[in-house]
Amino acid sequence: MPDIKILTEADLRRAISLDANAVSCIEQAFHLLATKDVVMPPILSFHVPEHNGEVDVKTAYVPGIDSFAIKMSPGFFDNPKLGLPSLNGLMVLFDATTGIVKAVLLDNGYLTDVRTAAAGAVAAKHLSRADSKVAGILGSGTQARLQLEALTLVRGIERAIIWGRDAEKAAACARDCAARLGIEVTVGSIADVMTAADIVVSTTPSGTPLIHADMLRTGQHITAVGADADYKTELAPDVIPAATLFICDRLSQSIKQGELRPAIAAGTVTNPNRYPELGEIIAGQKAGRQSASDITIVDLTGTGVQDTAIATLAYERAGAADAGTTIHS
Amino acid sequence: MPDIKILTEADLRRAISLDANAVSCIEQAFHLLATKDVVMPPILSFHVPEHNGEVDVKTAYVPGIDSFAIKMSPGFFDNPKLGLPSLNGLMVLFDATTGIVKAVLLDNGYLTDVRTAAAGAVAAKHLSRADSKVAGILGSGTQARLQLEALTLVRGIERAIIWGRDAEKAAACARDCAARLGIEVTVGSIADVMTAADIVVSTTPSGTPLIHADMLRTGQHITAVGADADYKTELAPDVIPAATLFICDRLSQSIKQGELRPAIAAGTVTNPNRYPELGEIIAGQKAGRQSASDITIVDLTGTGVQDTAIATLAYERAGAADAGTTIHS
Repeated sequence: MPDIKILTEADLRRAISLDANAVSCIEQAFHLLATKDVVMPPILSFHVPEHNGEVDVKTAYVPGIDSFAIKMSPGFFDNPKLGLPSLNGLMVLFDATTGIVKAVLLDNGYLTDVRTAAAGAVAAKHLSRADSKVAGILGSGTQARLQLEALTLVRGIERAIIWGRDAEKAAACARDCAARLGIEVTVGSIADVMTAADIVVSTTPSGTPLIHADMLRTGQHITAVGADADYKTELAPDVIPAATLFICDRLSQSIKQGELRPAIAAGTVTNPNRYPELGEIIAGQKAGRQSASDITIVDLTGTGVQDTAIATLAYERAGAADAGTTIHS
Repeated sequence: MPDIKILTEADLRRAISLDANAVSCIEQAFHLLATKDVVMPPILSFHVPEHNGEVDVKTAYVPGIDSFAIKMSPGFFDNPKLGLPSLNGLMVLFDATTGIVKAVLLDNGYLTDVRTAAAGAVAAKHLSRADSKVAGILGSGTQARLQLEALTLVRGIERAIIWGRDAEKAAACARDCAARLGIEVTVGSIADVMTAADIVVSTTPSGTPLIHADMLRTGQHITAVGADADYKTELAPDVIPAATLFICDRLSQSIKQGELRPAIAAGTVTNPNRYPELGEIIAGQKAGRQSASDITIVDLTGTGVQDTAIATLAYERAGAADAGTTIHS
């Protein structure tokens, strides 16, 4: 019976951070999704209505990666009343050849934070104008901070503007980001963000649209990260048809629980299957931005290939550092 | 952040065994499935064709049980060539109120073995004749042994007859069972088993039917455990219509990957939704066996409620025994 590595959040924070390696790892994962026979089943998702909870389970087998992860992500939204975080979760890593458990990654959602931000960097790297200098962020939570940092890894971001529903939190987020990244970060309205930013990343769990078509600016790139469930949306139904190019991380997920869902429901998108996936752009199978005036939008719902890729990298790094606890079972 | 208990297979074998408590735990789980607003999503299942592997993920939130389990069951059928077992897996237990991870149960499939056998006991307790004395088992693996033991917990089994595709393994299984249970256990053909047994339990991964309608005996009870995927079947399509009463653990699963699937495909079952579930029999919502001459059949595909119930019991028992390793993450 196998030896199993147990890695805590602290182990994983030492092993993995949001850097060029993490971005490269996620870029490679999307490339494999487009070019290999990846097995990525639909997300297993269920609600626990009595406790305002939901649980998602994601996974992907990726030829070319020697492990696969199964990720369990509970979100219990009454937890803050109990002094507990809403989101947590863990990943289990299996040997791709034998199905035997290699590691349990008790990351409390940390690896998801990193791989989600890294996907934002990948989207901006492949779709935004190379000369993008001003970043705009909607939201003021962990992903807001990480997505801004991610943009600085791939573009010469000189300043940023942040909007948050809670002005105090937005101000704190701006202060934190300015201190960490050494750039000017201010707060403003959604309209301010949309007017100023070359690249906008929306990171909220909003159930009503924040961005409308008349806010889009020529040459802008937008990455919508928030919508990952059938009651969330950040883009008004008129936004997708107004873009020059709309791209999904996974088309089937964007249709079911991403930004294509409300646009299809509103009738502004009638042929969703024509939209390319991010991996197809990376692999050169489909065309990306064609000119500096194009408006590009990427919808990120979060994919199992990202989880498998980041968990495998974390396991390798932790192993090299001899981190974690080994259990014989 | 939470303290998480890591329990190994050895810890779990000490905490849980196939006994009256395990049977009662699983009986109660089926009762809750019929009487409470259980949330049991469809099984997440995917194949890894390059390595002859498949992975199932099951879960259920059960009002009345303070935790829920997510079970991951890989089966990689080339593993024996590498000297490794085909089946393994683990469960993760979450707090049902907060979604926070409580424990990782590295059981290598042991808890599944126990809860599956316990369901066989529950099926026999509620459907077989009370005076059943002769047990018949198809198959000679771990489930064959456990299912026979399970029957002895609920009926006065005096002797058993076992058939296995591999005669040597069947003989070894019979010897093991006789020694462990202190009853006469012989081997025979499928026809021998069907002629002699008051209760038959089929435990094989067969892809072609083993039991045909003309083998059924008046008053007999059959529990079909093997079929849990869309390429497995132990009952010929004429068997279900020939029974007085056919019951599923979960109707939707029996239709998709259990014994109803091939019967529907063959056209011998045209209205599958009329069949009751085991929990409805236990709860008295639907009628069970009406006479000593009835032929009853239960199809067990394996349910998330069983996993949640046995994992919760194992966690409580292990906690009381102060077993396992506590990880702070």
